[in-house]
Amino acid sequence: MRDVAVVGAGMIDFGELFEQSVDEMAERAYLNALEDVDRGISPEDIDAAWFGTLDIAENASSGLGLAHATGLFDMPATRVENACATGSTAFRGAVQAVRAGETDVALVLGVEKMRDSAGGLIEGASLEQVWRGRGVTMPAFFGLRATRHMHEFGTTREQIAEVSVKNHENGSKYPHAHYRFTCDVEDVVESPQVTYPLNLYDCCPVTDGAAATIVVDENVVDEYTDDPVWAAGSGLATDSFLRANDESLVGFPATTMAAERAYEQAGITADDIDVAEVHDCFTITELVTYEDLGFCEKGDGGQFAEEGATALDGEKPVNPSGGLLAKGHPIGATGVAQVNEIYEQLRGEAGAVQVENDPEYGLQHNIGIGRNATGSVSCVNILSRDRPSATR
Amino acid sequence: MRDVAVVGAGMIDFGELFEQSVDEMAERAYLNALEDVDRGISPEDIDAAWFGTLDIAENASSGLGLAHATGLFDMPATRVENACATGSTAFRGAVQAVRAGETDVALVLGVEKMRDSAGGLIEGASLEQVWRGRGVTMPAFFGLRATRHMHEFGTTREQIAEVSVKNHENGSKYPHAHYRFTCDVEDVVESPQVTYPLNLYDCCPVTDGAAATIVVDENVVDEYTDDPVWAAGSGLATDSFLRANDESLVGFPATTMAAERAYEQAGITADDIDVAEVHDCFTITELVTYEDLGFCEKGDGGQFAEEGATALDGEKPVNPSGGLLAKGHPIGATGVAQVNEIYEQLRGEAGAVQVENDPEYGLQHNIGIGRNATGSVSCVNILSRDRPSATR
Repeated sequence: MRDVAVVGAGMIDFGELFEQSVDEMAERAYLNALEDVDRGISPEDIDAAWFGTLDIAENASSGLGLAHATGLFDMPATRVENACATGSTAFRGAVQAVRAGETDVALVLGVEKMRDSAGGLIEGASLEQVWRGRGVTMPAFFGLRATRHMHEFGTTREQIAEVSVKNHENGSKYPHAHYRFTCDVEDVVESPQVTYPLNLYDCCPVTDGAAATIVVDENVVDEYTDDPVWAAGSGLATDSFLRANDESLVGFPATTMAAERAYEQAGITADDIDVAEVHDCFTITELVTYEDLGFCEKGDGGQFAEEGATALDGEKPVNPSGGLLAKGHPIGATGVAQVNEIYEQLRGEAGAVQVENDPEYGLQHNIGIGRNATGSVSCVNILSRDRPSATR
Repeated sequence: MRDVAVVGAGMIDFGELFEQSVDEMAERAYLNALEDVDRGISPEDIDAAWFGTLDIAENASSGLGLAHATGLFDMPATRVENACATGSTAFRGAVQAVRAGETDVALVLGVEKMRDSAGGLIEGASLEQVWRGRGVTMPAFFGLRATRHMHEFGTTREQIAEVSVKNHENGSKYPHAHYRFTCDVEDVVESPQVTYPLNLYDCCPVTDGAAATIVVDENVVDEYTDDPVWAAGSGLATDSFLRANDESLVGFPATTMAAERAYEQAGITADDIDVAEVHDCFTITELVTYEDLGFCEKGDGGQFAEEGATALDGEKPVNPSGGLLAKGHPIGATGVAQVNEIYEQLRGEAGAVQVENDPEYGLQHNIGIGRNATGSVSCVNILSRDRPSATR
C-alpha cells in the first residue's frame, strides 16, 4: 500500500463572514494551504481535488464549485457529501485517490456558508420523516442522548458542562476560532436552555468557514517538505438508530466502527492516540465520543471530562483548537480543519494550543446525522509522525 | 496498480415511477445487481459503498441514503455528486477505493427521482448567475452549441436528428428504456420546438431510475465469476466556459481531457473503443461528443451520425441502450446504468441490442453542467475484456 503524506494546511478565520462569498472563502483557504507548504508548491502540481460541502448556500454543487473558487479547471474534482462527516470524507477520498496510484498531489477543500441560511439548515437538519413532527430537532436529539447518559451512568450536568469549559478555554487561545471567550461551569449551566439538559454554551455556533489540505504521494513528498505528516489509517461507517438490537442508546456505533477500522489500518489502539480533534457539535457528543473512540470505558466519559484528561496538558488532549463549540462548525470545512489542526500538532506548530506530550499519533473524528435519516455516519482519520510503512 | 473487476450489474426499468419511493428504487436496483453475480454474492461481502445522487427528491443526502435503501449499515458509504457526471464519478470512486487496497468488494449505487420535482430541476439546472436571466435555460445552452456547430462545420439539422432516430431505434429494443418508440428524421424535425434548433425529440425525457454495480478486487474476483469485465481506465475533468482562450465553442474540453486520461490509463486510443455509452442529454451533445472523444475529427460529427457509423451494426456503436434520449436520464443513476450496459455488451449479454463487433473495449461518458456554474464536468470510464495488467 502506498504511503500518503500531508504537506500543507490552510484555513481562514472561522466566524460570521457575511462579507465573503463562498468562492472567496474557499479561495483564501486554498491559497493559505499553498503558502503553508515548506518548499512551496505550484497550482500546476495539483492533479486531483476533493471538494467537501453540503452546499447549504446553494452556490457550488459538483466539483465545479472547487474549480471556480480556485481556478483549478482542467483537473479531476469530485464533490463528496456525508452530512457532518463531509470534510473528513473528502480527506479520506483524496488519500484513497493518491493511494490508488492515480494522483500524486491532491487538494482537499471544504467550505460552508452557514450564516446566510442558518435557520433553514437547523430546521432542515432535524430528523424530518420520523421525529421532527414529534419535536426532535437536532439539539433535542442530542439532548435525549444526554439524559440517557445521565440516567444510565450517573453522569452529572456539571461533567457535561466541563467539555464546554475546556473547549472555550482552548478556543480563547486559538487564532482562527469563531468564539474567543472563556466560561466556567456555572456560566454553562446558567446559559439559556436550548433543550434539556443542553444550554446555549453546550451547543456549537452557526459558523462560516473554509479549510484546505494538500496530500501527496510518497514518491513526491521530498519535493515539498522534509517534515511530512502521514495518513496512517481511515475508517468510515454508518449505523441506524432504529435497530432493535442496539446495545446502547448513548453512543454512536458508527464512531466505534470507523475508529476500529482506522486503528486497525494504522496498526495502533486508542491508547496510542496522543491528540484528537473530535466532533463536539454539542458537549454531550464529545463526552460520548471519548467512549466510542475507546479513550475511556463506556459510561466513564463524564469522569474523564471532569478530571481534565482531555485538557491541553491532560493525558489525552481533545480539541485543542476549541472544537466545534468554540472554533465553529462550517460543515464541509469542519473535518478538513480538524485534519489541519492534527497536522500542525504533530509538527509541533500549533502555537498557543500546542499539546505538551510530543504527539506521534493524532486522530480526527466527525459524526453526522443524515437529513431525513434515522442513522449516523462517522469518519475517523489517523495521522502519524512516522511513515506507516516503516512501522508495519 | 491493483486490477479491479466488475462482477455484477443491476437496474430497474427507467420511467415515470410515481408509485416507487427513492428507497424502493434503490433497493430494487441493488437486489438486481446482487442477483446478477454469476456465482452469487452475500450482502455481508460488501465492504464499501459509493452513492451517486443529486438528491433532487431531497430524500437521501449522505451515504446514509444508500444505507437506508439497502440495509447496508455498518459500512463505509460515501455520497458523491458531480452534476450529470454523478453516477460515473461514483463508479470511479469505488474503483479507486478498491485499487487503494482498502476494499475488496464495493457497491456503486445511483438513483434519482426526477418526475416529482422536474419543473424545479429544469429551472434550477439552468445557469443561474450568468445566463439564466438572459433566457439561457439548459436546452437553450445546448441549442446555442448546435447552431454554432451548424455555422462552423455546415452540420445540418437532419444530421443532428439522426442521433435521435438511432437512439430511439435502439431504445425500442432495450427492455429498461423509458421510451420504446421509433421515429424518423421527419418526426424529429417536426416535433414541437423546444429551443432552436432542438425539438422535443432532440431532448432526453425527465425520468426516474436506479442502477447498481458491484466491483471487486483482483484477489477475490474468482469467488464471483470467471467472466469478469475489468476497469481499464478512468478520467475526470472540469472546464470553464468563460475562458477567453477556448479554441472552440462547440465541444467540451472537459470531455477531451477526461478521455485522454482514460485512454492513457487503459493504454489505448479512441480507435480501440468497440462500443460506447455517451451522454446524449440532447442530440447535439452526442454529436459533439463523437468529436470530443476522438471517434471522428472535429467537425465531422454530423457526417459520422448520418453515415450510420454509430448504429448497432456500425463501426463504432454508440448508445446501444437507447442513450439518455430513449432510456432516460435519472441523473445519479445514468452513469451507473451506462457502466452496466458496457459490462453486458463486453460479456455478450446485451440481448436485442448486443453489438456485433465482439467488443473488447467499451467506454462510458457523462458531461455535466454545474448549477450556477460556468463550466462543465466530464467523467469517462473504460472497461475491458482483458485484464489490464496482462496487457500493460
